[in-house]
Amino acid sequence: MYSSRIHGPDEQNLILVVHGHHNEQFRWVDLAVSEQLRAMLPVESLPRPSAHRIGEAIARTLAAAGAKVYVADLKEKEGKQVATEIKGEFIRLDVSDPKSCKELAKRVAKCDVLVNNASAIQLTRADATELKRFDLMHAINARGTFLCAKLCLPHLIGRENPHVLTIAPPISIHPRWFAQHTAYTVSKFAMAMLTFGLAAEWKAEGVAFNCLWPKTVIRTAALALVPGIDPLRCRKPEIVAEAAHVILNREAGAFTGRFCIDEDVLREAGVTDFTGYAVDPRQKLLADLFLE
Amino acid sequence: MYSSRIHGPDEQNLILVVHGHHNEQFRWVDLAVSEQLRAMLPVESLPRPSAHRIGEAIARTLAAAGAKVYVADLKEKEGKQVATEIKGEFIRLDVSDPKSCKELAKRVAKCDVLVNNASAIQLTRADATELKRFDLMHAINARGTFLCAKLCLPHLIGRENPHVLTIAPPISIHPRWFAQHTAYTVSKFAMAMLTFGLAAEWKAEGVAFNCLWPKTVIRTAALALVPGIDPLRCRKPEIVAEAAHVILNREAGAFTGRFCIDEDVLREAGVTDFTGYAVDPRQKLLADLFLE
Repeated sequence: MYSSRIHGPDEQNLILVVHGHHNEQFRWVDLAVSEQLRAMLPVESLPRPSAHRIGEAIARTLAAAGAKVYVADLKEKEGKQVATEIKGEFIRLDVSDPKSCKELAKRVAKCDVLVNNASAIQLTRADATELKRFDLMHAINARGTFLCAKLCLPHLIGRENPHVLTIAPPISIHPRWFAQHTAYTVSKFAMAMLTFGLAAEWKAEGVAFNCLWPKTVIRTAALALVPGIDPLRCRKPEIVAEAAHVILNREAGAFTGRFCIDEDVLREAGVTDFTGYAVDPRQKLLADLFLE
Repeated sequence: MYSSRIHGPDEQNLILVVHGHHNEQFRWVDLAVSEQLRAMLPVESLPRPSAHRIGEAIARTLAAAGAKVYVADLKEKEGKQVATEIKGEFIRLDVSDPKSCKELAKRVAKCDVLVNNASAIQLTRADATELKRFDLMHAINARGTFLCAKLCLPHLIGRENPHVLTIAPPISIHPRWFAQHTAYTVSKFAMAMLTFGLAAEWKAEGVAFNCLWPKTVIRTAALALVPGIDPLRCRKPEIVAEAAHVILNREAGAFTGRFCIDEDVLREAGVTDFTGYAVDPRQKLLADLFLE
């Protein structure tokens, strides 16, 4: 349905997926993919078992398509395990620490794709949101997205099809997304706005910046932080990963500044049966935050 | 046109205008107003000479209506001068320093109104935006707004007509506002979204949170930071201050979560002639940033 712009091992792309911070994902993946990845999209070919996190699923999905992947994660044990399994490379990264980000950008000298997937969450109103939690959500969600993009830009500019993909929601200025957790919501919308803004800033240089958000709640390790969510009513992280892959294959010069939803991206790429993405296809799916 | 909910000297309101940071304004004003402020609105009664900054104009406008005002400012000389002239009180405040904000909240034990007016600006793309400048814009514009509101909330809840007013723009997700200065734009939109979000969070408690933004560029001391702006094509800070006063007199329980534009607010309050607000009524006015 689409032709893959991600190359084979002899002509490697670098995809940086920032993975894992406070139950969240933020990785840099050095990726090279040789085959036409469309073959991965049918539900039958989904990797089993499902990944525990969205960043992990993205790394696995792209690696399964032939990529060499750098996995950047705060958590050494989990990050190293994924990196080893996908024959990628692990880099320890604390997204909230500018020095750590700079070291990463140095180590990854070339870069075709950056996936900003780190996120911190605390769903409390202002009175119950300690300043240090406000600061952490900003540092991981918004500032980390800006900083990694800024540091990657010199690597991205001039590459064949450079993409930055941020796992962030479309912006919806509706009280329902703020009433119980303004600080978190603003940090996610800032993450999304920074990505949208950088798309406008770097359009002339041909670097794509897009956001991707799941239509339903995704069953990840981070779900433990959000009480009251039934994992059976969620989808698996692979749906986000496969949508990410579709986006990364789009022409960077033309496909930029978009707010994408995983299901819509895959539907447009020809996927019609989504039951395989459900944790339990018999259950009614839960819509994700920020989607009307 | 509207009845003032701001009281006389015997029943003082506290209005905190955070004033002055890196050429920007952020003040806390302890305010008591006895008379019907509508009388101030006609152009003829405008204070002359015009204030140098928006925060200063707000403090002067409210004080001229009978208020006792606390002026919180990083700049001691300028802040003290204004506080003295309006028979208010000066408090040194560094909005980017949580300790300084906490001390302020302690000193101002009661509070009816908080005006978040601090702002830092640097109009550069990501490559030319040093992280410390990104951090400063976030700290002053977004985090300062959140922190002062959070610290003021215990004072505001239960007051007769509690208001928080933030000098921030309506949110417009259009590439033109991002293409040349994503970092600044996101910090201002985060400032606006935090205010909008807190309106939803604290609606049940009757605390109003609104944003106010000038329709045209305002001639302030901060203009020196934005090259290419002709001061003659601007309006004076008083138009923002008078619109602020109108908003602060609205019923807090009903008027909240709004994005207000100064001219529209005054027009609705009965003002029809805006020529007196222009620096030079013969010039074509410059539309402000973020307004289509």
